[in-house]
Amino acid sequence: MSDDARWLAAAAALAARARPLSRPNPGVGAILVKDGKVIAHGWTHAGGRPHAEAVALEIAGKAAHGATLYVTLEPCAHQSRRGPACADLVSASGVARVVIGCMDPDPRTAGSGLARVREAGIAAEYLPSLACEASLSGYLASKHLGRPEVTLKLAMSLDGCIAMASGESQWITGPEARAHTHAMRAKADAILVGGGTLRADNPRLDVRLPGLAERSPERWVLTRGEAPEGWRALPSPDAIATMEGVQYLFVEGGAKAATAFLAAGLVDRLLIYRAPILVGGRPALGDFGLAALSQAHGKWRMGERRQLGSDTLEVYTRTPCSPE
Amino acid sequence: MSDDARWLAAAAALAARARPLSRPNPGVGAILVKDGKVIAHGWTHAGGRPHAEAVALEIAGKAAHGATLYVTLEPCAHQSRRGPACADLVSASGVARVVIGCMDPDPRTAGSGLARVREAGIAAEYLPSLACEASLSGYLASKHLGRPEVTLKLAMSLDGCIAMASGESQWITGPEARAHTHAMRAKADAILVGGGTLRADNPRLDVRLPGLAERSPERWVLTRGEAPEGWRALPSPDAIATMEGVQYLFVEGGAKAATAFLAAGLVDRLLIYRAPILVGGRPALGDFGLAALSQAHGKWRMGERRQLGSDTLEVYTRTPCSPE
Repeated sequence: MSDDARWLAAAAALAARARPLSRPNPGVGAILVKDGKVIAHGWTHAGGRPHAEAVALEIAGKAAHGATLYVTLEPCAHQSRRGPACADLVSASGVARVVIGCMDPDPRTAGSGLARVREAGIAAEYLPSLACEASLSGYLASKHLGRPEVTLKLAMSLDGCIAMASGESQWITGPEARAHTHAMRAKADAILVGGGTLRADNPRLDVRLPGLAERSPERWVLTRGEAPEGWRALPSPDAIATMEGVQYLFVEGGAKAATAFLAAGLVDRLLIYRAPILVGGRPALGDFGLAALSQAHGKWRMGERRQLGSDTLEVYTRTPCSPE
Repeated sequence: MSDDARWLAAAAALAARARPLSRPNPGVGAILVKDGKVIAHGWTHAGGRPHAEAVALEIAGKAAHGATLYVTLEPCAHQSRRGPACADLVSASGVARVVIGCMDPDPRTAGSGLARVREAGIAAEYLPSLACEASLSGYLASKHLGRPEVTLKLAMSLDGCIAMASGESQWITGPEARAHTHAMRAKADAILVGGGTLRADNPRLDVRLPGLAERSPERWVLTRGEAPEGWRALPSPDAIATMEGVQYLFVEGGAKAATAFLAAGLVDRLLIYRAPILVGGRPALGDFGLAALSQAHGKWRMGERRQLGSDTLEVYTRTPCSPE
């Protein structure tokens, strides 16, 4: 990995702080580097303004002269009543070089941000960065696919069970894994469960972590009927395209909802929490329409594995070559 | 880990070469160390003779004088028509010190091997070693429990399936995992499948690895009926106590056989091969009588995790505190 790619990855890590409070704007990260040192950094603030570049340039002031700006997303080219276009801010900042990890699919920018910075005589380049793309996955899904990015969470035993045959499901995983799930909820715009899970478990689906309680996302239930108070109804997985303002959707189960999203080809990311126990009970998934085993292979790539207490978390992303 | 414990672990690794050809004798490893260097080593030969200590002492000759002998199992105290007792060989060898990783439960030795070496004026000690115990697990199970050690193999998808709903099961895991399974078969005295699996898949259960084909173990089927030619019938998991000469039993499935062995509390070790695919099909296990989720926890400890191509192998052993 080149130095440039490493700085972009650092900016992507910084961008995580923006999500999801920056909505409806993408959560962007920016780093100003001079002589191999970070002199300022920024990320998109709550509500979407100021933008990451504006924060970093404001902090740096005149020190920005001659620095390199690493930014996860192409600087915006459109002025809004809430502030000037970042492309103009960057052009006037005195930075010597700009490296962008992801081009902005927003038609108001879409290449013109990069072009405007270059017109100002600044060496600006687009260096495709998987870390930056991953940090913007929900924003990119909403722009490219017209729907939220969907993360499916499965908390299961070694033998793939999410409950005993009796329905008892508390608890498969331990407190560390459950706390991690709460942190993941805080990163989502909306959480969804199936109608059966809502009726059986009446889950709160809130973020029970100190300081993050107010980040609890919208609660949705997969049902053709009415949603109870405090919940919104999604009639089918395909309807996620209508979830306005939702870039990151976290599907928590149960098996029917998980199966429905897989059957619809609408799962981008798997979060598998696996406890070192055997259960011999209810499986995590039902038949989602796999036609042959050969077609199951190559669809998922492990991005991360970590230990959470005695449980293991694995994160899989859909491989790029895999059709929806 | 102390130096002594490390040498015992090295002897245990060496003992792996003895298994299972040393049967009916335990597969033992021995290392002679002098001035921090290995001067000779040995393991139990095919058919059980010569013993590991005899091999190492024969190689070392007079160089054994003043050395330390690390041996995974207490030297035998009983002379046989096939050779002298190892305790006598060791006593006469000139070694200065003996470290033993596991006491021999065989009543013909059971402490008298260690005592005889001490009587010869040699500093001899028993340093309990988990590595040595693990290397002798089948032998120890046969002596302590009167039955083979049982390893249950499960090859499954991320969601715990061993086949599609249609029954299609070739292939869940990839060639590296399947080759590893063949190597594991070569370490077993007997392999068992359920009657359904035998009828549906007619598996060969042989060792298809260069140079190891002749190590293919006995083939057993779990059935109350007759076994086909080349197979032996086991009427129920409890009947494993009657499998004469079998110290290491490898249960390959399917789900009914796996469930039956778990229900009987007769699984000591789990070998889980997990492919990065989702299937939504037939679960690896059925209801094995778990009464409550809380009782599922704490029973299994991960001993090893490794990547085999795109699949993951995890090895779990039953925790010592966990009842059979």
